Amino acid sequence: MIYTAHITIMPLKELLDPQGKAVIGGLSNLGISNIKDVRIGKRITLQVEADSSEAAQVIAEDATKKLLANPVMEQFEIQMA
Amino acid sequence: MIYTAHITIMPLKELLDPQGKAVIGGLSNLGISNIKDVRIGKRITLQVEADSSEAAQVIAEDATKKLLANPVMEQFEIQMA
Repeated sequence: MIYTAHITIMPLKELLDPQGKAVIGGLSNLGISNIKDVRIGKRITLQVEADSSEAAQVIAEDATKKLLANPVMEQFEIQMA
Repeated sequence: MIYTAHITIMPLKELLDPQGKAVIGGLSNLGISNIKDVRIGKRITLQVEADSSEAAQVIAEDATKKLLANPVMEQFEIQMA
């Protein structure tokens, strides 16, 4: 069966997020000044072939650790749909 | 008050996602072959100053339409935390 896994990857809280800071500047140039903080990460949707949702989650976690997320700078969360 | 808005921006279903296709190739090089499809989008977290959660959502939607998402290629979804 095919299972859907949603992976959210965000920059670690301790780190500056330069892309987010740039967006705050862009918003303020557009006259939107009540957005105080912006953090930008990735959202990845996987279609995983597996025998069970649990097995699919293990595969998604493996893929995230090996390729998708950088644990030095990012934290991730996996949600099975 | 400060409200948190989570914005998920994904490439439209009708469009090819070249970044996702590249990741499928990368996964297969790592020996992970049971992931059949990958779609890569953005996840943005905003801290919005507003009088109510509804007002904060309106501001987040405005910011998303004006700066964060490209409606020609992307769809978005806003979730208030």
